[in-house]
Amino acid sequence: SDVKKIAVIAGDGIGPEVVAEAEKVLKKTEELFGHRFETEHGLFGGIAIDEKGTPLPQETLELCQRADAVLLGAVGGPKWDNNPKELRPETGLLGIRKALGLFSNIRPAVVFDCLKDASTLKPEVLDGTDLIVVRELTGGIYFGEKFRRETENGQEAVDTCAYNVSEVERIARQAFEIARTRSKKLASVDKANVLETSRLWRETVIRISADYPDVELEHVLVDNCAMQLLRRPSSFDVIVTENMFGDILSDEAAMLTGSIGMLSSASLGEGSFGLYEPVHGSAPDIAGQGISNPIATILSVALMFRLTFGYHEAADAIERAVKEVLDAGHRTGDIAVDKLKAIGTKEMGDLIVAAI
Amino acid sequence: SDVKKIAVIAGDGIGPEVVAEAEKVLKKTEELFGHRFETEHGLFGGIAIDEKGTPLPQETLELCQRADAVLLGAVGGPKWDNNPKELRPETGLLGIRKALGLFSNIRPAVVFDCLKDASTLKPEVLDGTDLIVVRELTGGIYFGEKFRRETENGQEAVDTCAYNVSEVERIARQAFEIARTRSKKLASVDKANVLETSRLWRETVIRISADYPDVELEHVLVDNCAMQLLRRPSSFDVIVTENMFGDILSDEAAMLTGSIGMLSSASLGEGSFGLYEPVHGSAPDIAGQGISNPIATILSVALMFRLTFGYHEAADAIERAVKEVLDAGHRTGDIAVDKLKAIGTKEMGDLIVAAI
Ligand SMILES: CC(C)[C@H](C(=O)O)[C@@H](O)C(=O)O
Ligand SMILES: CC(C)[C@H](C(=O)O)[C@@H](O)C(=O)O
Repeated sequence: SDVKKIAVIAGDGIGPEVVAEAEKVLKKTEELFGHRFETEHGLFGGIAIDEKGTPLPQETLELCQRADAVLLGAVGGPKWDNNPKELRPETGLLGIRKALGLFSNIRPAVVFDCLKDASTLKPEVLDGTDLIVVRELTGGIYFGEKFRRETENGQEAVDTCAYNVSEVERIARQAFEIARTRSKKLASVDKANVLETSRLWRETVIRISADYPDVELEHVLVDNCAMQLLRRPSSFDVIVTENMFGDILSDEAAMLTGSIGMLSSASLGEGSFGLYEPVHGSAPDIAGQGISNPIATILSVALMFRLTFGYHEAADAIERAVKEVLDAGHRTGDIAVDKLKAIGTKEMGDLIVAAI
Repeated sequence: SDVKKIAVIAGDGIGPEVVAEAEKVLKKTEELFGHRFETEHGLFGGIAIDEKGTPLPQETLELCQRADAVLLGAVGGPKWDNNPKELRPETGLLGIRKALGLFSNIRPAVVFDCLKDASTLKPEVLDGTDLIVVRELTGGIYFGEKFRRETENGQEAVDTCAYNVSEVERIARQAFEIARTRSKKLASVDKANVLETSRLWRETVIRISADYPDVELEHVLVDNCAMQLLRRPSSFDVIVTENMFGDILSDEAAMLTGSIGMLSSASLGEGSFGLYEPVHGSAPDIAGQGISNPIATILSVALMFRLTFGYHEAADAIERAVKEVLDAGHRTGDIAVDKLKAIGTKEMGDLIVAAI
């Protein structure tokens, strides 16, 4: 059938409010472009802990497995921060990534013209910054064996970081493919001067690069990358790295654009299935006030249209509408220079829907 | 005796040139303050690989063990980059840290007034930035078991990250002590929502904090810290973290000051022994031209005076001299606005020596 199934998991904090606006956008594109979506809602994160006693209820997982794509708001909040591990929202997040085989996290870090001043970087340094961090998402130290043991020096904690060749191959290929559609430059980030997993990573990336002779490959050590992102952000195009380094570097990259409230992300597996979510968190401090910025979530829908459904026309329309509304000067509180003129979550959503 | 033994290991690239200037400073302080130093030189890094077949020759290690402090230039260069592990300069660096028990790396990230413009951050964001990263240096994934094994999915590489309670305790205590001498704010960085070692880290830091009720402790997740360093660098004072996170965050912090060519660092163990070195690398591209900046190495001597010898007056004098020379407008090429007016390594060293 041509009806696309979207699992919607709003989550915690501002999650439900921003997702509600993204759903309006989905509706509008149905009307305008003749696409058909079936959305089904599931509990996930803190709210699922409260209502079902687990951050990732089996029925939510099945809902996602039945779907063509997942739209996620945000999860977490202080309420659950001190819970035991199995009752924490993050555990649900790691669980859903693994269960759905989402081995790749794609985070475009772009600068929105109207937000240039929001960055702490000088505008001339930021100029032209438009990069993508491709982060391995289901391997490495996140998922390796973890335990405690007693030693002569007191208790010891252990985390294991492991990568096998196929795990590196599939993420490397994906990064090379993405680089091909852009300016054909790939930076692979590792710590090959210290870590065995990084040496395997680098060898594998080099081997795969033979299939992509048109893409220029450079290897950057993670500490150096943290510096170079600050020094010359616009010189990066696609960055591929392992899970832990990707967590750190993608957040650094997002923050330096000054546009973190506007950035969307995709988590992908084999095939076209994907989970889409804003880069920002659940912002418990402003939840429920109707003042949060729905743009990152709305742009996550556009990303879903491109990467999972191939609905490029509708994706273009959404991105254009966002630009139009921003160009007209409308701002939510987080991005407003004059906070008094800030509009609310719903107004922003309505304006974008109207502009599509 | 009152003669302090300093092991001098100049290393590779610009190491020998910048260390030579620092030695002139040592001499001058002997004359002026009556301190007495005995310096002895050792081979280390790439040059040791070339001349002795190992990056850390036994006699160099013994030289350091006999000394009260070590002054290190920089190691590494493309010549040795593709060597097998045991013939790489980094292996010497990790080896010396472990052999000398240097469990703590202290990296002040300060903004030099005259270099404010060199930062890619906006001056108003940078204003007042003066922080110290205290990095655990002999534990974690750097030193855990590493190996390869065959699996169904091809070869697998494994790195082990381990921390025991005493390792965390000693670095935490040191960070609290440093925080006490400053504005009494400590940020402990971990990834406690994912890693077992981070949970042990956090528990231990919290336990130790009971002995430092005057120090305000906050816990920051590593990804968030990478962002907050960019967003509000001046709000940090002392940051304490494990080895790998410290490697990344200390480089990010150094780069955002714009003063990376000027920053010194100390690696400390139990007692007063310490290894001092500039934060910058061996810069093979400009080695031998006499144009490198010796200030970070000279300031490393000042740091050695403070932390190992307690020679605060001489340390003050060195720091004041550096400031005076910079205030008078003298610049090496790396920090010169007008490159044509840049002075050389030796001239900079001489000017500072004269100003002490
Ligand atoms: C919440 C946490 C487990 C998660 C991660 O580290 O992957 C988050 O930081 C992210 O980047 O999605
Ligand atoms: C060269 C490398 C092994 C080293 C490290 O990672 O510790 C360096 O980056 C540093 O920070 O001193």
